[in-house]
Amino acid sequence: MADAIHRVVIIGGGFGGLNAAQALRRERVDVTLIDRRNFHLFQPLLYQVATGALSPANIASPLRSVLKNQPNTRVMLGDVTGFDISGKEVVLADGTRVGYDSLIVAAGAGHSYFAHPEWEAHAPGLKTIEDATAIRRRVLQAFEDAELHDDPQVRAKLLNFVIVGAGPTGVEMAGAISELAHHTLRKDFRSIDPATARIVLLEHAPRVLMPFHPNLSERARRELQHMGVEVVTGAMVTDIQAEAVTYQRDGQTVVIPTRTVVWAAGVKASPLGKMLADATGANLDRAGRIEVEPDLTLPGHRDLYVIGDMALGRYPDGKTQLPGVAPVAMQQGKYAAKAIVRRLRNSPVEPFRYWDKGSMATIGRAAAVADLYFVRFGGYLAWLAWLFIHLMYIVAFQNRLLVLFQWFGNYLTRNRAARLITEVASDDNPQAGTTPNREMTTQVAPPTRAAVTATPS
Amino acid sequence: MADAIHRVVIIGGGFGGLNAAQALRRERVDVTLIDRRNFHLFQPLLYQVATGALSPANIASPLRSVLKNQPNTRVMLGDVTGFDISGKEVVLADGTRVGYDSLIVAAGAGHSYFAHPEWEAHAPGLKTIEDATAIRRRVLQAFEDAELHDDPQVRAKLLNFVIVGAGPTGVEMAGAISELAHHTLRKDFRSIDPATARIVLLEHAPRVLMPFHPNLSERARRELQHMGVEVVTGAMVTDIQAEAVTYQRDGQTVVIPTRTVVWAAGVKASPLGKMLADATGANLDRAGRIEVEPDLTLPGHRDLYVIGDMALGRYPDGKTQLPGVAPVAMQQGKYAAKAIVRRLRNSPVEPFRYWDKGSMATIGRAAAVADLYFVRFGGYLAWLAWLFIHLMYIVAFQNRLLVLFQWFGNYLTRNRAARLITEVASDDNPQAGTTPNREMTTQVAPPTRAAVTATPS
Repeated sequence: MADAIHRVVIIGGGFGGLNAAQALRRERVDVTLIDRRNFHLFQPLLYQVATGALSPANIASPLRSVLKNQPNTRVMLGDVTGFDISGKEVVLADGTRVGYDSLIVAAGAGHSYFAHPEWEAHAPGLKTIEDATAIRRRVLQAFEDAELHDDPQVRAKLLNFVIVGAGPTGVEMAGAISELAHHTLRKDFRSIDPATARIVLLEHAPRVLMPFHPNLSERARRELQHMGVEVVTGAMVTDIQAEAVTYQRDGQTVVIPTRTVVWAAGVKASPLGKMLADATGANLDRAGRIEVEPDLTLPGHRDLYVIGDMALGRYPDGKTQLPGVAPVAMQQGKYAAKAIVRRLRNSPVEPFRYWDKGSMATIGRAAAVADLYFVRFGGYLAWLAWLFIHLMYIVAFQNRLLVLFQWFGNYLTRNRAARLITEVASDDNPQAGTTPNREMTTQVAPPTRAAVTATPS
Repeated sequence: MADAIHRVVIIGGGFGGLNAAQALRRERVDVTLIDRRNFHLFQPLLYQVATGALSPANIASPLRSVLKNQPNTRVMLGDVTGFDISGKEVVLADGTRVGYDSLIVAAGAGHSYFAHPEWEAHAPGLKTIEDATAIRRRVLQAFEDAELHDDPQVRAKLLNFVIVGAGPTGVEMAGAISELAHHTLRKDFRSIDPATARIVLLEHAPRVLMPFHPNLSERARRELQHMGVEVVTGAMVTDIQAEAVTYQRDGQTVVIPTRTVVWAAGVKASPLGKMLADATGANLDRAGRIEVEPDLTLPGHRDLYVIGDMALGRYPDGKTQLPGVAPVAMQQGKYAAKAIVRRLRNSPVEPFRYWDKGSMATIGRAAAVADLYFVRFGGYLAWLAWLFIHLMYIVAFQNRLLVLFQWFGNYLTRNRAARLITEVASDDNPQAGTTPNREMTTQVAPPTRAAVTATPS
C-alpha cells in the first residue's frame, strides 16, 4: 500500500477550507471536503443580506459548483461530531467514518454570548444565511408593527434598534439600518416616519473598530453619528430581554426599550476545537480557539492542521495573536495544503507567516475606513477600495456581476430590493405558513382601531 | 359625513389586488391594501426559485415599495380572519377591525390535496416562497444523499423525482429538474451520475397542458420526452407516502419509490371564500371558488367584489369558466377599481369581459409552447415570447434586469447559482441551525463506509 494515494480530509468549506482544497487541485492527493452546508458563504457581506440589499444566493456559491472541475476532490455533505485520532478517522453524525492521512480542520466559529446563552433568543448574531434572514425579518417587521400602533411608547420601543459590538460587523449593521430608516423606507409608511428610528451602537471598548488606528476609529464614529447612529462606547451590556437591553456606563445603568437587538460582540470557535484539544492535549483559549504550532499543526500531530477562526495563531513575534478574519483563514488554508505536499516529498516546512494587508470597514453609502499596512485613509476612496476588494474575493463570477449590478442600483436609487419578510416555515409544520410571524406580533398589544382608519398623512 | 372619502379595502397583494390598488392611484378614494406578506410575488416564476435558477427576492417586490408614490394608499400587514358584512368591517387575526365602503377580496388560492390532506407533508406544492425553497432543499438534498449511498435501490429511490400534475407549473418543474440533472449538476458528483435521475410527470387527463390545443400538448410531450422526462398521462395518483408514490393506469397499479414529490395538481380558493359565501348566501364550487355576478360583486352586495383565483367568473357565454391565471386576476383587479369609481359617480357599470390573449408554457431551455388567440406555435420563438412577456410583467424594474441577467447567464453556462440548501431554522429554536436537514437524512439508512472512501471516479 506504499503507493496508495494520500488522503486529505478538510472539515469546513469556508475561506480556510476552500482555499486549502483549491491549493491541492494539481497535487496527487485525494481530497474530501466535508461541510454541513452545500455552499461556501461570503460572510463579510452577510450584513447586506440582513438589511435587504442582497439575496442569500448572491453571496453563497455551491461548493460542488466551485470544485466541479477539480477531479481529485469530492464534496461530502455531513455533520462532523467526533474524531478517532489514533484510527485516523473523522466521525459524522450518522455514524459514517471517513479515513484520512492528513486532516485540515477549518470549522470556523459561532457566536459567544459569554455567560448568557439566554440572550441568543433575543439578539441573533450574524454568521449564517438563516441568521441574516432572521435579522432581516425582525428589522422589517419592527417597522411594520410600528405602523399599526398608536401608542407612542410602543412605537418608540419598536423603532429602537440596538447593535451590540462595534467591530466591523456591528459598524456595518448600524450604518445599513440607518440607511434603511432614513432613505430606503422614507416614503413607505403612512402613520410613522421611519427616520424617527433610534439606532444605538453599544461597544464595551473605549472606541469603535478597536483593531484600527485611533484616528480611523474617530473618523468612523463621526461618520456614524452624522448618519444618525448613537454611538455609545465604554458600555457594558448587563441584560438582554425580549423587549429591552440594559447596559452600564460610568456607574450608571441605562435601559433601552427595544424589540430588535443584533449581536455583533463575541465569537466562539467551533466545538470541534474542544474535542481536538481533549484528544491531543493541545491548549484552548477562552474563545475556544486551539493553540497551534508555528506550522498550524497540533503538538505531536504533524498530520493534523487547525486553521482559520478555530486556530489561535500568532505573528512571528510569538506574542501577538492573529485576528479572526478571512485573509488569515485564506492564507492558512493555502499554507496547510502546501505543507502537506512538502511533507509528502520530505521537503522542509517553514513556519506560517501571515501577510497582513490591512483592514477595512464600510460605514454606509460612500463612507469607509481603510487601515492598510502602509497607509490609512477614509471616505469615498476607502469605500471604493472596499467595494473593489470585496467584489474581487467573491468566488463565483456570476455572483460578482450580480452583486456589482445590485450595488450600482442600490447606490443610485437607495433601494434595497431584497426586503422580504420570509417565514419560519417547516416541512414538519406546513401550517406555519398561514400565520406569518405571529410570535412577533403577539409581543405588543393589539393596535387600536384609530391607527388603521386614520386618513393617510 | 356626506363628504367623507370613500374607503376601499383590498385583501391580497397578488396580481388582482395590486392591479386594483394601482388602478385607484389617481382617484379620490382612500385605499387600504391588506396582505399577510410584505411583498407581491410573481408566482409564474416560482418554479425557477424551486430549481435554483433565481433567488426569492428576484421575483418578489415589497408592496410598500411598489405603492410608495401612491399617497392615497396604505399597506397593512395583517391576516384577515373574518368579515362583519353588515357593519362593513374586515376582522384581522389580532382583533383589529378595518372599516370599508367598498371591499375587494383577492386572497387567491392554495393547494388542494382533494380528500388527502396527509399527502401535503410528502408532496409540497408551489404557491409561496417557502414552498419554493422547501422544494429546492428536497431536490438538492436527494442528490446529496444519493452521493453518500452505495445501495443501488436506495440510490434509485433518491434519484426518482415525481411531479404530480401536468399543467404549466408541472411541465415547467419537470423540465427544470431534468435540466438540473442532465446539465447543471453533470460534473458535480463523484459517486453518482446525476443524469441517471428519473423524472416522472404524472397527469390524470389524457394529455399534458389540457387547456392548450391538442397539437401543442403533443409537442410539449415530445419535447419533455426528448429532455428525458417520463410523461405518464391517464394516471390517477392513489397514494403518496414519505418514500413512494402509487398511481393507477389502465387498471394497473404502479408504485414509484421516491423521496421527492412535487404537487402541481389541485388548487383550492382561500378559505375567506367560504366565509363570504356563508355570510352572503353566494354559491361555492368544489374548488372553493365563489360564484360572482357579471360585475364581479356578490349577489345583493354591490360593494363587495371578489376577483382572481377566488372568483368563479365566466366568459360572456355565461357557461365557460374563466381559468385561474394571472391575466384574469389582473384584468379583474382593474375592472373592480373602475367599477367602484363609476358607481361613486353614479355612472353605469358594464359586465366584466375577459380579454383572452392566450396561454404559454415553457418546457426547458429554448423550448416552449404558445397558444395565442389567433396563432399557435412552439419551439424557440415561443420560448423567446415567453421570456419577453414574463420579464415585462415583473413589477420592479431592478428585478426585471436582475432576472434578465441571470437568465442570460444560466442560458450560457447552464448554471443555476441559487442552488442553496437553506435550513428550516426558527427564531424559537436557535439550535436548529446546527443539524441541517436531519429530518431528511434519517429517512434512509446510514451510508456504508465504502461509499465515502472510494477513490474519485
